Amino acid sequence: MTIKTVVWGENVHEQTNKTVSDLYPNGMHGCIAETLNKSTNIDAITATLQQAEHGLTAERLAETDVLLWWGHAAHGDVSDEVVERVCEAVWSGMGLIFLHSAHFSKPFKRLMGTPCNLSWREAGERERLWVTSRNHPIAKGLPDYFELENEEMYGEPFGIPEPLENVFISWFQGGEVFRSGVTYKRGAGNIFYFRPGHETYPTYHDKNVQTVLTNAVNWAYNPQARVQDVTDAPNRPVEDAIEKIVERGPRLHQDGEDGFK
Amino acid sequence: MTIKTVVWGENVHEQTNKTVSDLYPNGMHGCIAETLNKSTNIDAITATLQQAEHGLTAERLAETDVLLWWGHAAHGDVSDEVVERVCEAVWSGMGLIFLHSAHFSKPFKRLMGTPCNLSWREAGERERLWVTSRNHPIAKGLPDYFELENEEMYGEPFGIPEPLENVFISWFQGGEVFRSGVTYKRGAGNIFYFRPGHETYPTYHDKNVQTVLTNAVNWAYNPQARVQDVTDAPNRPVEDAIEKIVERGPRLHQDGEDGFK
Amino acid sequence: MTIKTVVWGENVHEQTNKTVSDLYPNGMHGCIAETLNKSTNIDAITATLQQAEHGLTAERLAETDVLLWWGHAAHGDVSDEVVERVCEAVWSGMGLIFLHSAHFSKPFKRLMGTPCNLSWREAGERERLWVTSRNHPIAKGLPDYFELENEEMYGEPFGIPEPLENVFISWFQGGEVFRSGVTYKRGAGNIFYFRPGHETYPTYHDKNVQTVLTNAVNWAYNPQARVQDVTDAPNRPVEDAIEKIVERGPRLHQDGEDGFK
Amino acid sequence: MTIKTVVWGENVHEQTNKTVSDLYPNGMHGCIAETLNKSTNIDAITATLQQAEHGLTAERLAETDVLLWWGHAAHGDVSDEVVERVCEAVWSGMGLIFLHSAHFSKPFKRLMGTPCNLSWREAGERERLWVTSRNHPIAKGLPDYFELENEEMYGEPFGIPEPLENVFISWFQGGEVFRSGVTYKRGAGNIFYFRPGHETYPTYHDKNVQTVLTNAVNWAYNPQARVQDVTDAPNRPVEDAIEKIVERGPRLHQDGEDGFK
Repeated sequence: MTIKTVVWGENVHEQTNKTVSDLYPNGMHGCIAETLNKSTNIDAITATLQQAEHGLTAERLAETDVLLWWGHAAHGDVSDEVVERVCEAVWSGMGLIFLHSAHFSKPFKRLMGTPCNLSWREAGERERLWVTSRNHPIAKGLPDYFELENEEMYGEPFGIPEPLENVFISWFQGGEVFRSGVTYKRGAGNIFYFRPGHETYPTYHDKNVQTVLTNAVNWAYNPQARVQDVTDAPNRPVEDAIEKIVERGPRLHQDGEDGFK
Repeated sequence: MTIKTVVWGENVHEQTNKTVSDLYPNGMHGCIAETLNKSTNIDAITATLQQAEHGLTAERLAETDVLLWWGHAAHGDVSDEVVERVCEAVWSGMGLIFLHSAHFSKPFKRLMGTPCNLSWREAGERERLWVTSRNHPIAKGLPDYFELENEEMYGEPFGIPEPLENVFISWFQGGEVFRSGVTYKRGAGNIFYFRPGHETYPTYHDKNVQTVLTNAVNWAYNPQARVQDVTDAPNRPVEDAIEKIVERGPRLHQDGEDGFK
Repeated sequence: MTIKTVVWGENVHEQTNKTVSDLYPNGMHGCIAETLNKSTNIDAITATLQQAEHGLTAERLAETDVLLWWGHAAHGDVSDEVVERVCEAVWSGMGLIFLHSAHFSKPFKRLMGTPCNLSWREAGERERLWVTSRNHPIAKGLPDYFELENEEMYGEPFGIPEPLENVFISWFQGGEVFRSGVTYKRGAGNIFYFRPGHETYPTYHDKNVQTVLTNAVNWAYNPQARVQDVTDAPNRPVEDAIEKIVERGPRLHQDGEDGFK
Repeated sequence: MTIKTVVWGENVHEQTNKTVSDLYPNGMHGCIAETLNKSTNIDAITATLQQAEHGLTAERLAETDVLLWWGHAAHGDVSDEVVERVCEAVWSGMGLIFLHSAHFSKPFKRLMGTPCNLSWREAGERERLWVTSRNHPIAKGLPDYFELENEEMYGEPFGIPEPLENVFISWFQGGEVFRSGVTYKRGAGNIFYFRPGHETYPTYHDKNVQTVLTNAVNWAYNPQARVQDVTDAPNRPVEDAIEKIVERGPRLHQDGEDGFK
C-alpha cells in the first residue's frame, strides 16, 4: 500500500535568499519529498505556490493521501478557493501536516478557528524537543528528547485550540517553551502541526526531524475512500423516518427543499 | 456583578411567517432576552441582522460579556467583517452561545473549522435531551433528561470537532441521536452549542430550555479583562531574551521587523 | 505483520445458562476469536477466568498486542494482581478493548478513574448505533447507522471521563441514548469501549458488530516495542543535567536515592 | 457564598527536617490555608495524615467544597478506605487540587488511571512557568510567565492522560520541560494538578504561586448539591420505560435484581 503524498512549498526564499538556496538547492519541499521517498510505502511529489492553482487542483487533491504544507513569506498569496478546496479534502479524509511558519498559513487558521499566533525570535538558539506521549506513532524510534542546535524560537502562549494529543514540547535556550507537536482531527482528516523548520537553518537535513516527518505521514494516512458530499445536510423526509412517525405541527420547509445554508 | 448579554436574532421568519410571529411576538431574540433578564445578574439586550452592522459594532462587542446567536434563513447576509469582529471578541474572552440552526452560521463554522453539517427532518416529533455530564454548570437544576414534544430533528453524524465536553445528547422519536449540547474554547472565549429551537415550535417558552440558556450564560462568562492584541505575534529581540543568549547563524528578518502574516 | 490478540472471557454464563451456551457453544470469547481469525493479519486466542492466573500470565501479556475483555457476573473474582498486570501492559503499549458489561470490570474502572456506572434494562429492545466520527478507523466499512433488533439497554449518564473520541452513540427503543463507542489512551496503550454484547442475544454473530471488533483490533494495535520500566521515576543527577547547572539550596534527597512512591 | 476548603498535608518533613520547619513553621498546609483565607470567599482549614482517618472523615468530606493535597514521603501510609472516600467525593462534585509530589499520591493515581511518573532532580534550579491558556480562570492576574528561582525539576514524559486543558508549561534551567498545570474532570468533580512546591524551597510564600492556588480553589468549586448515589447503576424496569416497549427474548436477570458489580 503506497501513501500518495504531496509536499507543498511556498518556494519564495529558496529563490531570493542565498542562505536558503545553498541549504536547499531543490527547495525545502524538494528536500522533504526526497526524505519521504526513502520509505518504500510513501510516494511523495511536490507542488508550489507558483504553479497553476498552486499545484493543488481538484484532481491532484482527490488522489492525495497526505499533504505537507510549508509557507512563510507569501501566506496572503494563496487563493481562498484553493484554501477551501484543501479544507474540504481534509474533512473528507486527507491527512495534512503543517510545518513551522505554516502556523500562520490560511488553511491552518481556517481549520483551527483561532489566531494561531505566538512570540518569536530569530537567533539560531538551541531547541530541545521533548516527547510527551511515549510510543505515539509520530514519535516512533525517537529518544525521550532530541536537539536542534540552531533554530528560530517560537514561544507560548500559542493561539491554538486544545489539541487532541500533545506529542512534543520544546525547550528554548532563551527561556521559552512551545507545544511543538500537536494533533487534531477535522472531519475525517488527521492534522499534525510540527514546529521546527526555519529556512535559514539545516533543520530538514536533521535525522530526527526526518523521522518525525516520515512517522507523521504514516500516522495521518487514512486508507478509507473519501467521504462523499462532506458538507451536505440531507433532509430525511417524514415518510422515510427509520422509526414510523406521523408529522405534527406547523412546517417551515416544503417537501424536497434543500434547507438554508 | 452583572453579565452584559446580547441576544442576536436574524429576525426574518418573525417578520414573514405567521406561525413564528404568533409564537414570538417580540421575536425569538426578544423572548430569550426576557428569559435571561429574569436573572438578577444578567442584563440582556437584543441585536438583529437588519440593524447597522447587524447591531454588533466594535463598541457594542467590546462591552458584551456573552453573545447568543440565532440564525437560519439569512446566514449568507451576515457581513464577513462582522463575523471576523465577533470571532476576535471570542478569542479575547467573550462567551458565545450558538442556538439551533446557528450550526450553519458563519461565526460557528469559522470557529469550528469544520462543515458543521447534519441531517434534518421537520416533523414536530418528540425530542428527549439526556444529560451526559451530571452537575455540569450548564445542566444545573435539570433532571437526568427532559423532553420537547415537538421539535425539528437533527441527526448524526454532526460535522463538528470533538468537543471539550459533551453535556447533552438527544433521542428523537424517528430514530436518530444528536450531540445537542457541546462546549469548546477558542482563545479565551467559552463556546456552547445548544440544539433545540426550531422557530415554528414554542421551544424558547419551555422551562428547561430557559434553564439551560440561563445556566449557559453564567458558564460562558469570563469576568477577566479582554486579552489585548489577541492576534499579535510579537518579536522578542535577542537582547531582551529572558535567559542571556548570543545570536548565531544567518538571519532572514531585520531588527524591528514585523514578521510575515 | 500479525496482531497477536487474546480474547478474555469470564466464561460463567456459558457454563450455567442454556440460552447463552446455545448461542455460543464455544463461549462468547470463542465466537469472537473465530471472527477475528478470519482476518489474515490477526492471530486470536482465548483466555478465561478459570485458568491459572486467569490465563493472563506475565509471559502471555508480554507477547499480546491487543486484549479484548468480556466480563459480567464475576468481576469481583478477578485477582487484583492480574488487574495491575493488565494495566501495566496497557501503559506500556498493549491495546485493550472492553466489551459491554466490562464497563464494570476491574481493569476498566482502574484505567478510567471513575465509577463507570449507567442505567440498564433487559428487555430485548431495538438498539441503533449511529456513527459520530465518519471514516474513523473503527467505523471502517459501516453505514451511518446499524441496528441490533434485540439488546439490553444501557442509558446515560455513563460515568466515564470525557473520551478522546466518540465513535458511536446508541438510540434505544425505550427512549434512552448511550455513548456506545469511545476511545481513550492511557500511557502508550489504546483503549476502546464498545457497548453491545448482552449474553442472551446473538450480538457477536452480527456482521456489523464483527466489523467493529476487527476494526478495533487493528486500530488498537501499536507495533512499537513496549515501553520499558513504564512506572519508573528516574532521578537525573545534577552532574548529568543536559544544560550545565550548579546545585543550589538545601537538599532533601541523598545521591543515588530512589525518591518516594 | 463561602468555599469550604480543606488543605491536606502529609506533615512529615515539617516534623523531621529543620529546613522545612524553618520555612513553614505552621506546616506547608498551614501556610497554604493562611494564603487562601486572605480571600473573603474562602474558608480554609487543614487536615493531616496523623489525624484519625487522616482528618478526612465522611462528615468532613461531605461538607468540603474543595480539597488540596500535598504528600511526598508517606503516600503509602494513606489508608485505601480514605482514598476511595476522597474519590467518591470528587465524583459527586468536590474539587480536588493536587500539589507537586502529590503526582504520586494514591488519590491522584486512582483518578488518573495511569502511572503519573516523571523524571526529577533536586538542584534548586530556576523554573519558569508559561501560561498556555490566556485568561484561563486559574491564570487570572498572572503575566505570560513567572519564575521560581529555586525549585526541584520535574521532567517529561509525565505519565498522565491527555488533560482537559493545559494551563502551564514549565521551562527548567537544566534543560527539561513539564506540563505544570493541567485540568481534568472525573464525574462532577474538577481536578487541577499544579507542579511547584518542593518542601525545601519557599515556593508557597511566592505571590504568583499563591495567586494560582487561590484561583484554582475558585475554579474547582462546584456550588451544586452533591450527586447522590454516585456509583449506582439503577435498573429501569420494562413497565417504566419512557417510551412504551414490550419485553422480548430471553432474560438473565429477575425482576428487582441489582445487577452485577
